[in-house]
Amino acid sequence: MTLNRQRTIDELKDLRALTGNADGSQRVAFTETWDTARAWLREKLEQLPVEIETDEAGNVWATLRGESEKELLIGGHIDSVPNGGWLDGCLNVLAGLEVLRRIASEGKPPVTVRLVDWADEEGARFGRSLFGSSAASGTMNPDDLRELIDRQGIKLVDAIGKYGISLDTAKQAHRQFKNAKAYLELHIEQGPVLESMDLPLGVVLGTFGVERHSIRFIGQSAHAGSTPMDKRRDALGAAAKLALEIREIGKRHGGVCTVGFVRTMPGIVTAVVGQCDITLDQRHLNADSLAAMLQEAKDASLRFAEEENVSVEWSDLWRIHPIPFDPQLIEMADEAIREVAGASHRLPSGPLHDAAEVARAGVPTVMLFVQSLRGLSHAKEEDTKEEHIAQSVEALDHLATKAMRWVAGR
Amino acid sequence: MTLNRQRTIDELKDLRALTGNADGSQRVAFTETWDTARAWLREKLEQLPVEIETDEAGNVWATLRGESEKELLIGGHIDSVPNGGWLDGCLNVLAGLEVLRRIASEGKPPVTVRLVDWADEEGARFGRSLFGSSAASGTMNPDDLRELIDRQGIKLVDAIGKYGISLDTAKQAHRQFKNAKAYLELHIEQGPVLESMDLPLGVVLGTFGVERHSIRFIGQSAHAGSTPMDKRRDALGAAAKLALEIREIGKRHGGVCTVGFVRTMPGIVTAVVGQCDITLDQRHLNADSLAAMLQEAKDASLRFAEEENVSVEWSDLWRIHPIPFDPQLIEMADEAIREVAGASHRLPSGPLHDAAEVARAGVPTVMLFVQSLRGLSHAKEEDTKEEHIAQSVEALDHLATKAMRWVAGR
Repeated sequence: MTLNRQRTIDELKDLRALTGNADGSQRVAFTETWDTARAWLREKLEQLPVEIETDEAGNVWATLRGESEKELLIGGHIDSVPNGGWLDGCLNVLAGLEVLRRIASEGKPPVTVRLVDWADEEGARFGRSLFGSSAASGTMNPDDLRELIDRQGIKLVDAIGKYGISLDTAKQAHRQFKNAKAYLELHIEQGPVLESMDLPLGVVLGTFGVERHSIRFIGQSAHAGSTPMDKRRDALGAAAKLALEIREIGKRHGGVCTVGFVRTMPGIVTAVVGQCDITLDQRHLNADSLAAMLQEAKDASLRFAEEENVSVEWSDLWRIHPIPFDPQLIEMADEAIREVAGASHRLPSGPLHDAAEVARAGVPTVMLFVQSLRGLSHAKEEDTKEEHIAQSVEALDHLATKAMRWVAGR
Repeated sequence: MTLNRQRTIDELKDLRALTGNADGSQRVAFTETWDTARAWLREKLEQLPVEIETDEAGNVWATLRGESEKELLIGGHIDSVPNGGWLDGCLNVLAGLEVLRRIASEGKPPVTVRLVDWADEEGARFGRSLFGSSAASGTMNPDDLRELIDRQGIKLVDAIGKYGISLDTAKQAHRQFKNAKAYLELHIEQGPVLESMDLPLGVVLGTFGVERHSIRFIGQSAHAGSTPMDKRRDALGAAAKLALEIREIGKRHGGVCTVGFVRTMPGIVTAVVGQCDITLDQRHLNADSLAAMLQEAKDASLRFAEEENVSVEWSDLWRIHPIPFDPQLIEMADEAIREVAGASHRLPSGPLHDAAEVARAGVPTVMLFVQSLRGLSHAKEEDTKEEHIAQSVEALDHLATKAMRWVAGR
């Protein structure tokens, strides 16, 4: 049996019809619709000569035994955000399924090949993404999750309990990596880079490190009519300067820097802004560059605070180190893409993915990106040309063959 | 009887004790506490040889008949904002009361002198300031007020009905200006200018014209991680540039320009801002300069929108023309201040005052400002040194004498 690229497209549409509605995909993890999607996937897996297992963190594994115990992993997540797109997460799973079918049809492979459907990549319900993969990688701190509740007041511990998952044992899923020698993940880009270059596919160099901070400028609220320009301590003035400066910092270092939120107080048309809160998100693939971007932003904030005669306070929101992918797998992925599409491009991933957790666990990892139309994701408008989807399945298949050979030879 | 400057300070403290609490003054118009304040004032007025009248707009007039029917008006407002200061509005009334006492003690004055306590200057309850003075000036459009309600859902028409006031007849208060030849008003500055110059008193040149607008920049929301800097359509970028540029416009023209409110959408740490709404408040004493400031802000917004590849829309919020005060009365006020304090300063008023409405009615008008500490107002921290309050009463008294002579001679 040869690879059937069209079957993946058809299955993606079937899944959309089964688990989506007019507002988009509704496969939020630990809900009935997610159950429906997983049952549908299990039916398909049961037609293959694989062992199916759900681990302590709710991840589903389909194992095709090979000549060697050494394992090649292919992963994705069938869960979606509410009102999500038809590709984010499930493309990876269904393309992996098709590759598994092709490999299985050729008899016992040289190494063991496993497809994993990670549990709750999106974290849409409890605000905690990468549940299953972080449990497996060991980076999860269960105590951070015990008090999480959804909008209906349901606790995460109760929601996962219904699926037989306990925070006390979830990290035992780490055993899944015992023989893992390589991990592959295909994903839509969720950004505009490949589309702007008119390329269907790219290889991902790693996931950005992230520095996320809240910054508060405190000046003096004052009457907009009675306070001359030179008597003001305008918190917005300092914030606006920083919002512009961080863009230059991002460009200078080849990273990305974003002020996404601004709040002014008292926040009325007739008052000079006395306090201005902004958020800063900085990302870079290189840890030193990320640190430099943060330092330059801090220095700039102090300079602008002084210029405006206001004070400034920084609060950490979140941070993660850059996670580079495996150099040899990157070469193989590049080759696979060029075989299928003629040209490739190497780019970092802004968003995190389950692949980042696998890489943190020490498993050589790489990702493929397929072009997103208009860079849209996490919305029903998310889309990719069918020809590009077909090419992505084929590229993953080429890469799997190369990786099996590589794993076997190690 | 000579002017008793200390009595005004004592009466201000009595009024504070009677109508304030730990949170500040509570003399909101059309409430019981306002009633209490006005009854207290009426008791004091009844000890003078004056006729007391409440007009169709709820303004209270105390008339000291003079040799001539020509009238000098002295005005203020005893109402305050909720949790207000101890001086805003009532200083004017009580200083005017003391001046009236001094004039009355000297026998029949050459011209008629009237003290007016305007109704609801603050507009704190229904969001419509200058109620009584705009009814008298004729600028009020009663239909704009018919549907106004307070936070408890009580309609303005019902609240004023309890005081025998009807929107259908309020503008008949205009008859009060029939013989008016000059209007004087003392007020705290509510800004930092006199304090920064170490001067107790200043003469007000007029009230600023105001242009108030809402500005919306529309770009494209995008993922903060997956969208490179050069692929962004950042609405905040354009808004931040404008927030900085309007300050330069204000300085260049000698006016004031303020962005007091910013809202970002989607407004999350991980998204490039797709839409940014800001407010703009511009004020100037000169109509041409005000128009130029507005045009320059509009031009700048278009330039920044183009630079950032976003669109921009302007919406009018409110505007009023500059209202210059009377040049001859300004000279007299300057002289009166110099007699009392040695030095004077001329400055515009950012906030509107009842005096602006009187000037719009064609009555020659001037205001005196007394220094505010830290520029604070509309808060219990509002304060002015007692020595400066005493000097302000004396300056108003000197000005009243000069103005009576001027009115008599016209």
